[in-house]
This record gives sequence, structure tokens and C-alpha cells, in this order.
Amino acid sequence: MTERLYLFDTTLRDGAQTNGVDFTLADKLVIARMLAELGIDYIEGGYPGANPTDTELFGEDRGIAATFTAFGMTRRPGRSASNDPGLAMLLDAHADAICFVAKSWDYHVRVALETTLEENLASIRDSVQAARARGREVLVDCEHFFDGYKANPDYALACAETAYREGARWVVLCDTNGGTLPNEIERIVAEVTKRVPGDRLGIHAHNDTEHGVANSLAAVRAGVRQIQGTLNGLGERCGNANLMSLIPTLRLKREFADRFDVGVSDAALASLTRVSRKLDEMLNRSPDRHAPYVGPSAFVTKAGIHASAILKDPATYEHVRPETVGNRRDVLVSDQGGRSNVLAELARVGLTVDKDDPRIGGLLDVVKEREAIGYAYESAPASFELLARRMLGTVPDYVEVIKFDVNVEHRINALGQRVTATVAVVKVKVGDDEPLISAAEGIGPVHALDLALRKDLGRYQDYIRSLSLTDYRVRILNGGTEAVTRVLIESTDADTGDTWTTVGVSPNIIDASFQALMDSIVYKLIRSGATA
Amino acid sequence: MTERLYLFDTTLRDGAQTNGVDFTLADKLVIARMLAELGIDYIEGGYPGANPTDTELFGEDRGIAATFTAFGMTRRPGRSASNDPGLAMLLDAHADAICFVAKSWDYHVRVALETTLEENLASIRDSVQAARARGREVLVDCEHFFDGYKANPDYALACAETAYREGARWVVLCDTNGGTLPNEIERIVAEVTKRVPGDRLGIHAHNDTEHGVANSLAAVRAGVRQIQGTLNGLGERCGNANLMSLIPTLRLKREFADRFDVGVSDAALASLTRVSRKLDEMLNRSPDRHAPYVGPSAFVTKAGIHASAILKDPATYEHVRPETVGNRRDVLVSDQGGRSNVLAELARVGLTVDKDDPRIGGLLDVVKEREAIGYAYESAPASFELLARRMLGTVPDYVEVIKFDVNVEHRINALGQRVTATVAVVKVKVGDDEPLISAAEGIGPVHALDLALRKDLGRYQDYIRSLSLTDYRVRILNGGTEAVTRVLIESTDADTGDTWTTVGVSPNIIDASFQALMDSIVYKLIRSGATA
Repeated sequence: MTERLYLFDTTLRDGAQTNGVDFTLADKLVIARMLAELGIDYIEGGYPGANPTDTELFGEDRGIAATFTAFGMTRRPGRSASNDPGLAMLLDAHADAICFVAKSWDYHVRVALETTLEENLASIRDSVQAARARGREVLVDCEHFFDGYKANPDYALACAETAYREGARWVVLCDTNGGTLPNEIERIVAEVTKRVPGDRLGIHAHNDTEHGVANSLAAVRAGVRQIQGTLNGLGERCGNANLMSLIPTLRLKREFADRFDVGVSDAALASLTRVSRKLDEMLNRSPDRHAPYVGPSAFVTKAGIHASAILKDPATYEHVRPETVGNRRDVLVSDQGGRSNVLAELARVGLTVDKDDPRIGGLLDVVKEREAIGYAYESAPASFELLARRMLGTVPDYVEVIKFDVNVEHRINALGQRVTATVAVVKVKVGDDEPLISAAEGIGPVHALDLALRKDLGRYQDYIRSLSLTDYRVRILNGGTEAVTRVLIESTDADTGDTWTTVGVSPNIIDASFQALMDSIVYKLIRSGATA
Repeated sequence: MTERLYLFDTTLRDGAQTNGVDFTLADKLVIARMLAELGIDYIEGGYPGANPTDTELFGEDRGIAATFTAFGMTRRPGRSASNDPGLAMLLDAHADAICFVAKSWDYHVRVALETTLEENLASIRDSVQAARARGREVLVDCEHFFDGYKANPDYALACAETAYREGARWVVLCDTNGGTLPNEIERIVAEVTKRVPGDRLGIHAHNDTEHGVANSLAAVRAGVRQIQGTLNGLGERCGNANLMSLIPTLRLKREFADRFDVGVSDAALASLTRVSRKLDEMLNRSPDRHAPYVGPSAFVTKAGIHASAILKDPATYEHVRPETVGNRRDVLVSDQGGRSNVLAELARVGLTVDKDDPRIGGLLDVVKEREAIGYAYESAPASFELLARRMLGTVPDYVEVIKFDVNVEHRINALGQRVTATVAVVKVKVGDDEPLISAAEGIGPVHALDLALRKDLGRYQDYIRSLSLTDYRVRILNGGTEAVTRVLIESTDADTGDTWTTVGVSPNIIDASFQALMDSIVYKLIRSGATA
């Protein structure tokens, strides 16, 4: 017999507090729909009245297929509920639920709110009543609950109980500073459940001691039945509890999967990696390579000793199957690894080669040679795959580059302003067709080259429309401006969410970048099944 | 009465398995010394025999002020300890301790090792004996211990007990896949302590479910007295347990600080943020902004509902004081610490300014503004000095750049070879003299620009003859080719041996590089006492 556990996403509200994150209205709607598709029960859209975006978001019915929630403050101290413009705005919001934030640490009530403990309880009571009277489902976030409990348990409990008794569907215990450890969370939640039933309690954890996920699960163990978190752990300071880690653990680890149901289906779980990457892309951030479950390196093995065991049985080195979360296994090829790494990688990309094929030795030698001059195939599996396919003779001659030219000019314009103009020209030949020549202006030389190169590839143009560059990394391998430059380019296919990394090496940063750009395009053409 | 808890760092061994990380010998020595200074008890340097770097590292005594540890396999099945070249290499390593990795999951013994359960126990026994006979402290990493325990508890325990009985100082329980949850860790460790005392047990956790830190602490609660982890949580897949989060929690949170002593002093704790950033810099990685305790955003609050409370009392929104870990809170109002830093820095370079000079506040504002868009003055003190001197009006107008132009052309030459030619043109005005225009070919665009810029600076030419560029670093601050680029250039004066670093930031890498080149030349002119 399983119990229902509810997921509450606050990416659009608490996640919007992340340093450097600034959602537009369109962003919020795309993300809200993505969350609803994922099977999240509650989606907190924002704080109507706090800024124009959030006010507009709640200005009409958005048809989000989840409990769409507006966040706001309880009524201000010393005012009646009917005479508080902030509360009125919240009650007027087009939302299925209202989540009030309420102080529950006596010190904060006095210092930050500058009111009495009694008035704060009255404010909770009046606000819950007002929202219920408008037919809304009500949640109350008890801010600083755990610090408050440690300072004055009776008062913290009184806040929680007031919300519960007035009919709040959920009383959410917030570790606002993120400083509480799992054992404390478990102990305090267990105390709270003596006054408010666990199936009316939620947990809102932050990651300031790297326990955002552990604290959320500790609270579930102690009885709460709602978890608040964000996509990719977005949030102020060190972020909120990371739903991208919580969801797979709840679905795939028996301790939780045997006891609880969540609204995320198997199919939705298999979209998790794509959802994570999509958010990063919208925020123009590189994915966290090492993120649990959904990171590009989450199922990547480097060691030679492990690689041979993985070939024998992948399950021996994986705690869950990468496919269940839409991620994939990868074995890195590098100087450190050996033949078995290469074979495993070839098998993964669908190249079947006999393990005694002499070309394997040749490929290993070329990898070593090229790594010695600066290539890093373990960081650029797509370039490794191309190298292997070329040595095995399975890469069509799609495109020949006849020339490229890039120019950066810095000057003082007619208005006396300093301006820099960057123009690239690329000339390519596709099969026996007439050469194609394209030009583009860019923000910098690599940007201009990328635009010019992808402007017209003739018959292949359709294959590369969904391709975009999502990360560009440069490493100088010796000292000085004469040093060898390694460029790593990460590309993303907007249609599939796939990402891949390619590498280029040259003393000239432009040459190195161009190599990596070309590899990325050829890789995409192979993946799309384009023929010469 | 407190108990001693030991810290074991494996950044240089398991951390080296990180996707994209490739330590040189020099890197390893710098990091090992940094770890010893931090007060880490055990430093695992690498795996002698597995690659040339690690073999060389252990080829002589490195004088690391910690228990310097070599990692390797137990003797191979079917061989005697005296007839195993891998083991011999490990025993010959210049190390204080040897950490053996041993299988403890019966399935792995059979499938990966392809031997019998008995032979694996004999291998553990013989290897521990051999290392003890050579006077080494011995550790045994029980690989896949938790999965092994769940599959066959008797056998997993037999592996641990064998190591313990043969005199291994530490039996380390490894969650190699990183798939075990804290409750399971706590339950299984408690079982193990019935057979091996807790003060002989260690924990080696990975972060695959985002529980690397929580699992380590759960094991401590259950009795283990050694924690293995890495700087910044480096490591294969999702990384190892993050010492940068563990150390402050062990030192600052009462649940642990009241019960345990670790080797990290208050002063070392206050260097933690610097240590974390130093490692990122060595790896040419951007710091994780949201890392607990040490991340640049860890104590930064975005203006919102919390802002006024923070102004009233910052401690109300911080779970620990940022200074304790060498980090800092977001500067909301004029910050005395920043001011005195600036004053000290100005004094150091010979600029005496009254401490109440209003220009100090202005300089702080400009530094903040420019750092927000990507400048990094901490890494480029020469550019900071120039900025300060410009605001104080003491930089002569040596050279005005009228224009520069750089062109990179890649084509196929008359011999059918692919060639790339790079040419830069720079036009400058020195005082009231006629403009000077110079051109140069280079290996890449920045090299060509540098040569053209320094070819003819008229009356200043003599001052810059001895200048050369000795390092060039590029960091991309957002994703994609449209990202902002930060360039750091290190210059050296061949006459004096002085080196200095300058910074440039722009969406265009060429512009950014040119800024840093110009700063370097102007800095040299000031240092040489050139007058306008």
C-alpha cells in the first residue's frame, strides 16, 4: 500500500532569486508547462504585486495543468485583511492556490516584522481565512521554522497549528537559512507531527550545507508529504532542494519507491535530462557536468579498470540505469584508459569492431599522438567518434572547406565612439555542386565564423537548423600568446535536447575553433543519417 | 570530551578521475602542499605504476607534511605477493601509507576479478602483510562495500575483518557507485562496527544521488572516524564527498563540533574559500557560484523580501558567519573591509591617499561594477593598479590607439596545402607626433596584435624592449560563442625578472585581449617612470 507524496516546484519564485537569473513572462510560461508535463503537482509561478512580470503572469488564467500557485505575504501587521492592498492583489490573482509566507521565529517577528507575537498569529489566521473565503487552496510557508523551533518551540508550533486549524491544506516547514542538518530536521519534524498531521506538512529546504536533498528526504522519513524544490536546484545563495535529484531517488530507490507514489510517470522520468538541459539553455548556462542523474558526466567512466568491468556488465558500476532518467552511459577515452575503453566507446556509438581488429591498435596510437599535442578526447567524445569513424572509413565527405577568412577591426567611428566590427567569410564545396560562399557579422571572431559556416550548407542545411553552440571553452596549453590553444565546443540539438562536445587544437585559436565547429557539424550530419 | 576524526583527501587520485581533469606533476605537488597546510591528515597522491606522472610523483620523498599515501591494487589473484610487479611498485613507492583497493562484493570478485571468494580474501591478507612488513601504515578501501553487503553480508564483512585482523590501520567502506542512501549507510555501518571498531573504519562516499556529504556524516554518526573526500567534490561521474562542505560543517555545526576534533585550525578554515578558488584556477574552471560555504554566491542575497531584515541584522539570514570560511556577504552598503583592503593595496603600490578621500568610495564602486561584468582584479593586480591610478589622475596619456585590425585567412595554397595566415595592423598616436602604423604577422590573432602593437611606440620603444608575454589565459563567462570573454595576460620584464598580470573583458575575445595587452604596456611604462 503506497502513500501519495506531492511535489511543489518553486523554480519560478524562489528559483528566480538566483544570482543572475531573470525570467521573462514567456520564460515562465514555457517552464510552467514543462513542469506540468513532468507531473509536478504544484507550480509556484511568482509573487503578484512584487514585480510587473509576476503581476502580468497572474493577470489571466494561464491554463497550467497543475495547481498553479501565487506566492505572497500574510496581511500586514496592524491592518485588517480587507484593508491590505498586497493581500487584495494576491486574492485577485488568477491562481488555483495561494502560498503565504509567514514568520515563525519569534526573533524575526520582533526584529524584522516589528510586531507582536500575537499579531503575527492573527495575521496568519486572517490571511488563511481570506484566501479560503475566495475558494483558494491555501499553503503557509513557515519561514525560518527550524531556527524558530530551536529558539522558541512553542511559538513556532503555534504558527504551524494556527495555519492548520484555519484550514491551510499545507503547512510548509522552511529551513530558510539552509543551516539545519538532517538529524535535526528529522527530530523536529517528528515533534511537529504530534500537532499537525504529516499529510498536511511540507518541507522547504536549502542547500547551504549541501543537504538540500538529504534534508527533504529526512523530513519525508519523519512524516511530511509535500516536498518543495526547484529545477536544477536553482535558488538564492546555494540554491533550493534539487528536484532533479529528488525525483529519480523517489521513483527509483526502493526505500521511497516502495512506500510512495509521486505524479511523475516513467515516461516523464525519462524526459528528466532533457528538462534539465532545456532550463540551462533558457538561462544560457552550461549544464553542471557532475549533476546527479542528469549531468553530462553522471554516467561517465574514465578509469581503465572500471571500463573493462562495465563492458562485462554495465550494472556493476551503475546505481541506476541511465536510460531511466533519459541520460546515457559513456566511457571516456584517454591516455589513462586502454583498449577496453576504446572498444566500449565504439560499441556504444554502434560501431561493431572485432576486439582483435588491428585498426583498434592504430586508433589508440592516433589518440595518444593527438592527445600528446593537445587534443582531449575524453572531454570531446563526439570528436573521438568522428576520429574512429574516419579510421574505420565510415564518414562521408559531406563538406569541403575551401577557405575561410575572419576580420576584426577596431576603430573610432564618425561619432567619436570606439567600435569593433567582426566579419567572417566561409567558402565550402558540397559534393559536385558549385562552391557556396557565405559571410556573417558576429560579436567575436568565432561567433562570426559559426554564423557564416552554418548559413548555407546547401543540401545539408535542413539537418543543422536545430543545432546551436551552448558552450565554448578555451585552454592555453603552453605559456605566452604563441602557445597551443585547445578549444572545446559544446553543441545542442534543440529538437532532441542532445548535446555533444568537439575539440580543436592549433597554435591559432581561430583554426582550433574552426576545427571544433566543423567536427560538430559533421557529427550532427552523421547522427541525422545524412548521406554524401 | 571530544574524539579525533581524521580527514583523508583523494583529490589527486579519485579526483583525477574527473572528466576533463588532467594533473601534471607540478600541479600535484602544489595541491598536496596546499592540503597539508589546510590540516588534512591523509593525502592520497596517486597510483604509482598506473601512469608516468604518478610513478614519478612517488619516485622520491616529496616532504609533504601529512600522511602521504600511495594507492594501488591488492596482489593479483593466483600470484604470490613477492611475484606481483604492480604490488612491488607500490611497496617501493616513497609514501608513508599504502591504500589498497579490494573487492568486497562477491559478484564483482567473480565477474570482474574472475577469481574465487577465498582467493580474494587471501589477496587482501597477503597485501596488508606485505605493506606492513615494509613499515607502511595500511588502509584498505573495500570497493562496493554497501552493494556487496546487501548482496552477501557475510562476505563483505569477511573482507573488512580480514583487513582489520591483518593490521590495516583503516578499513574504508566505499559506496563506489554512489547509490546508497543515508539511512542505509547508517544501518550498515552500525552492523560493521560490531565486527570492526569504529575508530578503525573510514567512509568513502560519492555524490550520485546528491548525498555524498550526507552519507559521510551518516557514517560518522554510526561510528566511523575517517572521512575520504576531495576538494570541491572533484571526482568521477558526480564527484566524491565534498571536503569543502564537510570541513565547515564538522568545525562549525555543534552536532559535530562538540563531539569531534579535526586537524583543520581556525586559521586554516578561514583559508577554505581561497583554497577552493585556487584549485579552480589551476584547472581553468569557473568556481561553482552556488557551492556551499565557499561559492561566490553562498552568502549573497538578492534584493527582495529579505533585504530589509538583512540590513537590520545580517546574522538573521546567515547560518554561519562568512568570514569563518574566508568568504564574504554581499556588500549592500559601503563596506569597511573592502575599503581598508583598497587602502592597503594603494599603499603597497606607493599611492598614498587619505583614508577618508571620497575617491576611495568611487573606486570601490567602479571595481564592483566592473567585476559584475567579468573583470577579475584579484587575479590581475596590475590592471587594478592602473584603474586606481586613473581614478586618482596619475596615469599619463602615453599612447592613443586609433585603430587596430586583425585578419585570419585559411586557404589551400598553390601546393594544395592548407595554410592559415594571420596579419595585424595597429595605428597609434604618441603625444603630438604623427600617427604610427605598424603591421605584423603572427601565429594567431593575439600574437600578431601583440607584435604589431609593440613594433613601434615611438619615444617609448626603449621602455618596452625587454617586455614579453609569458602567459595568456582565457575564460568564457557564459555559455556559447556569444559569451563574455575574460583574458588574463602575464607579462615579464627580461631585464628585472618582474612579472605582472593584466585583464581584459569583452564579448569579443580580440577586444578583450587587446585591453589586457594595452594595460600591460601602460603598466610597464609607469613602472619604468616614463613621462608623457
